[in-house]
Amino acid sequence: MPRYALKIEYHGGPFSGWQRQAEQPSVQGAIEAALSRLEPGEHTIAAAGRTDAGVHARGQVCHCDLSRDWDAYRLSEALNFHLKPAPVAIVAAAPVPDDWHARFSAVERRYLYRIISRRAPLTMEAGLVWRVNHALDLDAMRDGAAHLLGLHDFTTFRSVACQAKTPVKSLDALDIAKVETDAGTEFQFRVRARSFLHNQVRSFVGTLERVGSGRWTPDAVRDALDAKDRSACGPVAPSQGLALMAVGYPSDPFV
Amino acid sequence: MPRYALKIEYHGGPFSGWQRQAEQPSVQGAIEAALSRLEPGEHTIAAAGRTDAGVHARGQVCHCDLSRDWDAYRLSEALNFHLKPAPVAIVAAAPVPDDWHARFSAVERRYLYRIISRRAPLTMEAGLVWRVNHALDLDAMRDGAAHLLGLHDFTTFRSVACQAKTPVKSLDALDIAKVETDAGTEFQFRVRARSFLHNQVRSFVGTLERVGSGRWTPDAVRDALDAKDRSACGPVAPSQGLALMAVGYPSDPFV
Repeated sequence: MPRYALKIEYHGGPFSGWQRQAEQPSVQGAIEAALSRLEPGEHTIAAAGRTDAGVHARGQVCHCDLSRDWDAYRLSEALNFHLKPAPVAIVAAAPVPDDWHARFSAVERRYLYRIISRRAPLTMEAGLVWRVNHALDLDAMRDGAAHLLGLHDFTTFRSVACQAKTPVKSLDALDIAKVETDAGTEFQFRVRARSFLHNQVRSFVGTLERVGSGRWTPDAVRDALDAKDRSACGPVAPSQGLALMAVGYPSDPFV
Repeated sequence: MPRYALKIEYHGGPFSGWQRQAEQPSVQGAIEAALSRLEPGEHTIAAAGRTDAGVHARGQVCHCDLSRDWDAYRLSEALNFHLKPAPVAIVAAAPVPDDWHARFSAVERRYLYRIISRRAPLTMEAGLVWRVNHALDLDAMRDGAAHLLGLHDFTTFRSVACQAKTPVKSLDALDIAKVETDAGTEFQFRVRARSFLHNQVRSFVGTLERVGSGRWTPDAVRDALDAKDRSACGPVAPSQGLALMAVGYPSDPFV
């Protein structure tokens, strides 16, 4: 059976998350239903990152096995036709070897978390960013983030529901930019690692927001990390600010 | 009665437009209803630009007359509280003289029209931009736009329903930028004039899109303008790509 990699963009708002669940709309379920319109029967797809309810994606990657040979471009067009009107789009498709796996072949994940600082409620950005109604100190957040880079036991920043075998991970980048936009002052957290623990990015951002607001010192982030204790974490940032931007493979299947 | 100017942001999607209509949700109606929660009774507000159904705003301006003296900041907070959950936000409020008028005192309007060029359906930008599934030639669109600058009879680019006294208007800017975004290649049309005819910006953009796609030459825009004939216009671009960004006054009431 030929295997195809799909690069997927979605608005996480209407979904209970990536993973298929009985009685709940999921991104996986929407794509599997579209696949079954192309080739009748059961389809089970695997994704690089199982995003939570409300989390978005620009570059989620999954793979699927089909019985026919499909032209990659026609496959993406046909899936997009059947996905309507769900806010899920196949932005690229490519044939991959039989042993290629969207999750296990991946060597890097990149996430973006967006915060807008302003008093007024959001209108056009509602559901796509986390609004905070106070100023944030960029330099303090950067100082706090510096403590998180590199190889650490991230038990503090890991959901109690996390199923990863080990809390030891290497964080390769946590860059924070401050951008003036039409909607207000936006802070963009760009995070990169080989793999992440459950809720790790949202735990980082929720903790760094406490630093930005002045409630925590930057060094308190190091103390929280050193505690290796979930209860030392700041609040978990809300899901709607997070997007899975890209998944890296030793060789990019989409070029 | 003290008069207040309000600067308003909204997502146009759920509304039949700015203007109050019986049995239809409107931005004006939403704000008037919020005002009547602050001071019971009928409220009638006037806006700088009566945006059509689906058109957004970052900086719409209206004025309202209240019986009490309100602190401007508390007025905006109270209105935002009562506007929930409608995607309408008061981003600024300010006391203005009794003879100040949001529409008649205005001396400039700025609009932004966004096109994203990509094959895949939109997800996070759905309802906020116009998607076209082909490439657009930036230089050709700029050459076409140059014909529209200055003082002209804009009959070609005016809706037949337009109630303006004259089709002669001065167009002060029509700048087009090409920006690579996470969602694809975006074209941003920034348009500025003292005032606009009904559907003028969308008629400009729909015509220039024909130029960008290669169906029209840039000089055909001049021919369309010279025709002074509505039927010479290109297609009217869809409403969801348009936003009223700012309204200018001889003295900015919000600073």
